[in-house]
Amino acid sequence: MRASSSSGGSKIIDLMHSHKQSLGPFFSFEFFPPKTEAGTENLYLRMERMTSLQPIFVDITWGAGGSTKELTMAIAEYTQTYFGVEALMHLTCTNLSVDEIKIILKAARDSGIQNILALRGDPPKGAVSWEPAPNGLANAIDLVRLIRQEHGDYFGIAVAAFPEGHPSSSPRGSPGSPGTGSWAESTIASDIVHLKGKVDAGADFILTQFFYDPSVFLDFVARCREADITCPILPGMMPIQSFSSFEKMTKFCRTRVPQRVWAELEPIREDDEAVKAYGIKLCVEMCQTLSAAGVPGFHFYTLNLEKSVLLILEELGVTQNMSARRALPWRGSRSSKRGGNNGEGISPRVNGSEDVRPINWANRPKSYIKRTVTWDEFPNGRWGDGRSPAFGELSDSHFFRPTEGSKEDRLAMWGEAPVTPQDVYEVFAKYVEGRIPILPWCESRPQAETRIISDPLAAINRAGFLTINSQPAVNAEASDHTVFGWGGPGGRVYQKAYVEFFAPPDLLKLIMEVIGMHPSLTFNAVDSSGNQHSSGPRGVTALTWGVFPSKEILQPTVFDSETFLVWSQEAFQLWTDAWASLYDDETESSALLYDIHDTYYLVAIIDNEYIDSTLYQFMLDLSVLANKRSAEGGKSDETDSGAIGFDE
Amino acid sequence: MRASSSSGGSKIIDLMHSHKQSLGPFFSFEFFPPKTEAGTENLYLRMERMTSLQPIFVDITWGAGGSTKELTMAIAEYTQTYFGVEALMHLTCTNLSVDEIKIILKAARDSGIQNILALRGDPPKGAVSWEPAPNGLANAIDLVRLIRQEHGDYFGIAVAAFPEGHPSSSPRGSPGSPGTGSWAESTIASDIVHLKGKVDAGADFILTQFFYDPSVFLDFVARCREADITCPILPGMMPIQSFSSFEKMTKFCRTRVPQRVWAELEPIREDDEAVKAYGIKLCVEMCQTLSAAGVPGFHFYTLNLEKSVLLILEELGVTQNMSARRALPWRGSRSSKRGGNNGEGISPRVNGSEDVRPINWANRPKSYIKRTVTWDEFPNGRWGDGRSPAFGELSDSHFFRPTEGSKEDRLAMWGEAPVTPQDVYEVFAKYVEGRIPILPWCESRPQAETRIISDPLAAINRAGFLTINSQPAVNAEASDHTVFGWGGPGGRVYQKAYVEFFAPPDLLKLIMEVIGMHPSLTFNAVDSSGNQHSSGPRGVTALTWGVFPSKEILQPTVFDSETFLVWSQEAFQLWTDAWASLYDDETESSALLYDIHDTYYLVAIIDNEYIDSTLYQFMLDLSVLANKRSAEGGKSDETDSGAIGFDE
Repeated sequence: MRASSSSGGSKIIDLMHSHKQSLGPFFSFEFFPPKTEAGTENLYLRMERMTSLQPIFVDITWGAGGSTKELTMAIAEYTQTYFGVEALMHLTCTNLSVDEIKIILKAARDSGIQNILALRGDPPKGAVSWEPAPNGLANAIDLVRLIRQEHGDYFGIAVAAFPEGHPSSSPRGSPGSPGTGSWAESTIASDIVHLKGKVDAGADFILTQFFYDPSVFLDFVARCREADITCPILPGMMPIQSFSSFEKMTKFCRTRVPQRVWAELEPIREDDEAVKAYGIKLCVEMCQTLSAAGVPGFHFYTLNLEKSVLLILEELGVTQNMSARRALPWRGSRSSKRGGNNGEGISPRVNGSEDVRPINWANRPKSYIKRTVTWDEFPNGRWGDGRSPAFGELSDSHFFRPTEGSKEDRLAMWGEAPVTPQDVYEVFAKYVEGRIPILPWCESRPQAETRIISDPLAAINRAGFLTINSQPAVNAEASDHTVFGWGGPGGRVYQKAYVEFFAPPDLLKLIMEVIGMHPSLTFNAVDSSGNQHSSGPRGVTALTWGVFPSKEILQPTVFDSETFLVWSQEAFQLWTDAWASLYDDETESSALLYDIHDTYYLVAIIDNEYIDSTLYQFMLDLSVLANKRSAEGGKSDETDSGAIGFDE
Repeated sequence: MRASSSSGGSKIIDLMHSHKQSLGPFFSFEFFPPKTEAGTENLYLRMERMTSLQPIFVDITWGAGGSTKELTMAIAEYTQTYFGVEALMHLTCTNLSVDEIKIILKAARDSGIQNILALRGDPPKGAVSWEPAPNGLANAIDLVRLIRQEHGDYFGIAVAAFPEGHPSSSPRGSPGSPGTGSWAESTIASDIVHLKGKVDAGADFILTQFFYDPSVFLDFVARCREADITCPILPGMMPIQSFSSFEKMTKFCRTRVPQRVWAELEPIREDDEAVKAYGIKLCVEMCQTLSAAGVPGFHFYTLNLEKSVLLILEELGVTQNMSARRALPWRGSRSSKRGGNNGEGISPRVNGSEDVRPINWANRPKSYIKRTVTWDEFPNGRWGDGRSPAFGELSDSHFFRPTEGSKEDRLAMWGEAPVTPQDVYEVFAKYVEGRIPILPWCESRPQAETRIISDPLAAINRAGFLTINSQPAVNAEASDHTVFGWGGPGGRVYQKAYVEFFAPPDLLKLIMEVIGMHPSLTFNAVDSSGNQHSSGPRGVTALTWGVFPSKEILQPTVFDSETFLVWSQEAFQLWTDAWASLYDDETESSALLYDIHDTYYLVAIIDNEYIDSTLYQFMLDLSVLANKRSAEGGKSDETDSGAIGFDE
């Protein structure tokens, strides 16, 4: 094992070594850069969902002859920054001089990329065989050598291996012909010598070509070990997506496919769904066989497709202990610009590293990362005072656009023409019920812990408390609890109940009238003009913490009354920029949303009593009261929201 | 209220304002510098005990004409550094030129003193009346003005007031003559004008002369308020210590003593103990009367005596919620050299301030402060790596001398001539049983939480596990729990069970044989040569933490495997320097203790399971096993401690 660089252990080889096998196998995903901008946006959405499964890394391919190099690097950087997953950037020798490769390595390093898959590459289009570029490198061994020579131990380096021989090493076989093990014998032997050369030159681990016979891989690993190749060898898995592509691929790559597979595919070859389902089943079986033989992890060739890989991981049971795999309740960032959580299991509490986040951006994590992307130090949950770096301005309007869906989609989700507050309340209620996928303030469907309290939340929302963030209280749950767990097994996790919502002034007044009877509750409220009301001291409150064996106490999520004010500006702006903007200026709908923006308060309530929390009961009681007052209509002066003034 | 200086809120006025009245009254103690070195050492011991009651400050008098100025300043600095209590240094104008006062102010500031009681002072000895020194100041108003002029807002300033008129303001009355309120009328009126002048010049609060009639004080305060003196006025309380001193003092100061007091004292005036008891009772009654009238705190003229004041505070119930008054489980330091805990209730977690300590020095806090006295930043419980400032060397042999007792005392405590290990074990057992007051490793009697587990600890010690530090597990106890509480009311506190002990190699081997069956336990062991054994990961483990409303999680006590090694050197050195040194070099006792020093291990065991800890049961089981093996004597090779080797 190569020593970890001082820059913080972001080498994939280190992540592999620190992976706890008790959590099941690790896995990784390969993606390729799409050809269009829309395709790239689409890929990001897909990657965001897929990386939530916590792959140990994702790799981004290098278009033939370097045709995608800017995009490959951009996707790798975006992945690290916003998805918090280490990226392995492919790099080939094709068409590149040594000088050009040096420039690319420097650029990759400047982008924070720290892992490279060093490949020779395919021959340039139209060329019969592979030839080095002018002043270029001859093969992957030279490339590994160059990376080490130029950057020492900085990069983690992976190299490729072909368990059934390199496609160009010997004449093509025919599809369906079961390999005998003899025709490819000499080429495999020389391939292993070449592979040993790549490892000796400085590679950390090996990714293999896909295969459909586990014994092919296991035999290959055994031969590598005999040849004194001791580093990890990850099996490449490519779930069958359609019969035609499978046939074409295995033919092109001369992949040995067990006769049984052809036989089982034959009757369903015209039924794409059945083939896909078979591909999933086959891949699951292969993974189980390999796991049983001691293989610690799998590399998936996703072809940018989501479904098969997700179902395979589900079948393997890997998605069941996602919570135990999470180092922290939120996804860290691996941006090199940011003094970040290093993502290696539980981060040590080192001054300046990111081990605490305010709760407010929990449902808009990319916006949070964007606004803190230049921070060197994360001041332990405090942002409000002069000592701390300022939040970045959200000048980029991109961050006020919803991440998903066209204007039509959003109109369908949020209403073609809302005209009463109740129309708006219904949208929020439907979101917590899972009937609408996103809100301007919530970039994805409600988290599992929100779903647990969806019934009370729906009632609360229909009463006019428009929730955009919430968590129930948790007292000493196991740290591998399916819903609440994080930080790995063996610890205990805790949460204070929290709810954050928009509410009209009369409902805030109602809260202020009764909250004093609940001494464990504190609230903070602010409107879009900055008018504030609050109870309890200002400062930072721990909302989520964990106690682990042989660790300091971790406190990854906090509420900071100052940071709340920063967040509120973003939250109010979303009413207009992300929602009201759907409607024409002169419409009733636009006027309604602007009125909400102008008059409602953003309110955060914390229940400091985490063992017997009464926060949600309190909110339900409030809702009953609110509904009652609302039913009484304008009979009482008190419910006339237009005339509410706060006497302070 | 004057704004707090930027240096961290160490002004007494700020401490008063932030005192939570729900905790009962605050209080302060006055001491005077003793005349001899032995007297000073004695005072320190007394102050250490008395300041454990957490007075809001202590004040140190200024010997007549400045005769004690170095010692006054030294005591003030020592108090702040080692007792963690803010010191109020007296300063008088007598015999000092303006230039000399400026030099003193500068020196006080350099010593970290931030509070001064500004007095005119008594006339120099032999002088008939008070006259300014050449180029000196005329009165306390001028002194307050000078302090503000020279140091702006840096210093907190107190001034004195005389509820019954200044002794020199009018002719002496006779003892026992009840004041009519008329003879002193004019002088009190002019005194209040003078007092207003001191406050207007920049004083923060007022300490009064002692009195024995609460209405005298309350009337005085009312008149001050009428005169627009709005700052806090602390009543001076002087418990009656003996009839003769009481008579003399009240006569000298023309103190109004209610006729009832004289009447009640008369029959017991010859019985010193009865007078003292009466004095306590009277003072308690006065405090209760004043409390009922809204007085928030009391200032005690201790005359360097401990007993009366302690009993008064006990009677007042103040000592019952000591734990709720503790900001942290350990006493912070207020040394200006150290980036310290600011002691104002719960400290905010700011990078570099002291909010975490390793558990190891819990029973040698002065040594810990001494070794970290130059630290600007406290690296959150981590000391061992290159990023952290090094521990100071304990070159000063003072820190290897026990704090209390002569050589004879120590021989009596620790044995005139121990010759077997069992003789030594017995000393440790007696210490945890409270039958010996101190050990070289434990500067004071066992803490309350140790006393709770004294029975198992005694058994463990007799079996050869020589404990020097321990805490039981605590799960979610109220933060104002009598024994375990700290951090103020309303929170919950937690502890992992911990025990630290010396043990011979065969007992360490026993631990290593069986600890694997207890997965929640981890141990660290090291001998005086640096040989190490351990289980569990290296690093920092939280041992004591607390969850409070509207706060971050506090984690004041940790175990750090690296810091443990630093501590072990000090711990081993105490065997020889503090204990073996009691015996002549060639004695068996000396040889025994040197042998223990050379061969025993220092062992620390943590139970990560804090809800259902089994650590003490484990230690008891080990003790039974150890006793059994020991009873079997040398029959087995395994129990031959001379031949133990660790195969690692």
